[in-house]
Amino acid sequence: MTKQLVLEKTAQAIEILQETEIDLWLTFVRETPASGDPVLPLIYGHDLTWQSALIMTRQGESIAIVGQFEAETARLTGAYREVLPYHQSIRPLLLETLARLQPRQIALNYSANDVLADGLSHGMFQVLQNYIEGTPWSERLISAERIIAALRGRKIPTEVARIQRAINTTLQIYERTYEFAAPGMSEQEIARFLHNQLEVFEVEPAWESNSCPAVNAGPDSPVGHAAPTDLRLQAGQILHFDFGVKQDEYCSDIQRVMYFLMPGETHAPEPVQRGFDTVVRAIQAAARAMKPGAPGKEVDSIARQIVVGAGYPEYMHATGHQLGRMAHDGAGVLGPEWERYGDTPNYPLELNQIYTIEPSLPVPRYGYIGLEEDVIVTENGAEFLGSPQTELMLKALD
Amino acid sequence: MTKQLVLEKTAQAIEILQETEIDLWLTFVRETPASGDPVLPLIYGHDLTWQSALIMTRQGESIAIVGQFEAETARLTGAYREVLPYHQSIRPLLLETLARLQPRQIALNYSANDVLADGLSHGMFQVLQNYIEGTPWSERLISAERIIAALRGRKIPTEVARIQRAINTTLQIYERTYEFAAPGMSEQEIARFLHNQLEVFEVEPAWESNSCPAVNAGPDSPVGHAAPTDLRLQAGQILHFDFGVKQDEYCSDIQRVMYFLMPGETHAPEPVQRGFDTVVRAIQAAARAMKPGAPGKEVDSIARQIVVGAGYPEYMHATGHQLGRMAHDGAGVLGPEWERYGDTPNYPLELNQIYTIEPSLPVPRYGYIGLEEDVIVTENGAEFLGSPQTELMLKALD
Repeated sequence: MTKQLVLEKTAQAIEILQETEIDLWLTFVRETPASGDPVLPLIYGHDLTWQSALIMTRQGESIAIVGQFEAETARLTGAYREVLPYHQSIRPLLLETLARLQPRQIALNYSANDVLADGLSHGMFQVLQNYIEGTPWSERLISAERIIAALRGRKIPTEVARIQRAINTTLQIYERTYEFAAPGMSEQEIARFLHNQLEVFEVEPAWESNSCPAVNAGPDSPVGHAAPTDLRLQAGQILHFDFGVKQDEYCSDIQRVMYFLMPGETHAPEPVQRGFDTVVRAIQAAARAMKPGAPGKEVDSIARQIVVGAGYPEYMHATGHQLGRMAHDGAGVLGPEWERYGDTPNYPLELNQIYTIEPSLPVPRYGYIGLEEDVIVTENGAEFLGSPQTELMLKALD
Repeated sequence: MTKQLVLEKTAQAIEILQETEIDLWLTFVRETPASGDPVLPLIYGHDLTWQSALIMTRQGESIAIVGQFEAETARLTGAYREVLPYHQSIRPLLLETLARLQPRQIALNYSANDVLADGLSHGMFQVLQNYIEGTPWSERLISAERIIAALRGRKIPTEVARIQRAINTTLQIYERTYEFAAPGMSEQEIARFLHNQLEVFEVEPAWESNSCPAVNAGPDSPVGHAAPTDLRLQAGQILHFDFGVKQDEYCSDIQRVMYFLMPGETHAPEPVQRGFDTVVRAIQAAARAMKPGAPGKEVDSIARQIVVGAGYPEYMHATGHQLGRMAHDGAGVLGPEWERYGDTPNYPLELNQIYTIEPSLPVPRYGYIGLEEDVIVTENGAEFLGSPQTELMLKALD
């Protein structure tokens, strides 16, 4: 399964190189179990121990220069036309290969903007600089962020299917959780239930288990990337979840809310319902705007303005991020131009990218409302990859 | 358990800073689930999403500058006296903090030599350079490799205990495997048995599952970081394993060999026995030489010369490497001065470092002999952390 994915993604990488007019893309790694390059699972599918160079070119060349003990594994990927093993130093083979290919630019995996295009360590950058010192290549290094952003972002059908499966599992777990959750339970108890479901479904949490799920009961719960607390859910409160699974190496990331009716209540209080409706409206408007070519910041602004325009404070996070092998997959973000997002809010959306949409707002005295839906970019706007939550889940005490 | 370890290791880090006379150590990360710094589990124990700065100084200051949503988690580590949360950009707080501390050097996590001290990505290095441009700090950046090598290498008692447990589990799994293995089985069948044992013992493989265990049946099996094949073990062959487990986040890494007697044989053929004895002798000599202060290359040379001196070809790998959270833990290596090891063969051994010792040789027509033992450096030479294999395991057909 991994092998097929690697073959398809390496083929896609060469197509992307041809679009961008970059001559050569070099992934330069070592000891990847200790510190891997996030692009490696897409273009190689295994770890690499010694200094290794994975090279692809616009001309369609694909070359793996690897330690001798790993040559057989490299060959078995089927993704590299040439596998060049070495014993003591990669330098001679690397220089010979560059001399043969004569690239005008060498794209390397570094990026100030995108962590997932930033797999080259600073030490390995220095090692490479040392190897190519005095050659023409030393002046031809550029960032591969465009290549990697396109490669990770544009999902091939296999990837869409895997993410869809992760989403389906997540929604099933949420259904069971709605049944389970009740006033009197602590956030931690509810989180344990979701953790057990991960085992039942034989999937992993999509991010650090400690805060996956995040569970927020009522207005006093700290919101964010924090672990569930011993706060106990009460009737008359909002219960908020942020949860996702990793299944077959791809992730979902979905937020849901419930409201627990007070004795005698038959529907949610007006401030809760109004907050919920505002978030739903923001999500729907953002999804409609998500056409190829639109910069992420435009989509962000649409959702953000709906929330702020309805009188709520501005949420201090992006409206959405890409989803893939990571719950926070890199490059383009549906976010404002804040320094911490670098240039990524300016990236235009592309066909077959998968994003979350997750505006949020606080409802004083009741709790936190955040919904998060996973969508795929199509020519006509985004399509939801699972049924979005459009009605507030109400639960009464028995 | 993690919390205690982080408290002890951050305290140790400040002691190490005091030894090295480096003023300030800065770990600078973002989105660590996508691309983590290998030092983070030792000094923080959680992921970090936004750009984050973990600062320790010779004066004993410990400061975490993190995104607001993660401030609570940072506080709960107990390892940072100051937690400074930010909203939009880390830059102002980072610059204020440096201005307050006035360090003469800022050690960063990059290293040409040691992957585990090389957690700073090149893109994040550029981000930092941009932040400090025009300040005195831009000229004061140095590598933190000495700090990290000492921190990872010098095992505290908790870490030794965890590695010992991983070793004990591995040796138990080997005992069961000796019972199981028999001529006629393929390498893959034998590997599956070990994989099942990982589940029985509820531990993970110490490296990529695909080649953990490595299983080599007879002389035609490709040795190295390759997956077990469908080659079938025959009587009259050596069976070689390379296997380790990760238990409570710490690893073992152990090689073992067996010989399968031919009908009528009562002991191994002379070339097999001689090869085995040579490897055992090399390991024992290396262990005796492993005193604090000895450079790794000296220990390597002792073992290597015994193998070569006995008439075998020189093995094309190091005699040993450090062991810890990774099966290949970084910094000092018991290896020759080959380019791919950088400067690490020159590093002197330190008290309480844990190394593997793993010389090897081929026995033509019979197979591959590699033994690997895990040892801890003491004042009097290395001590074995599990019973070393000193007798060739013989198994006859029933």
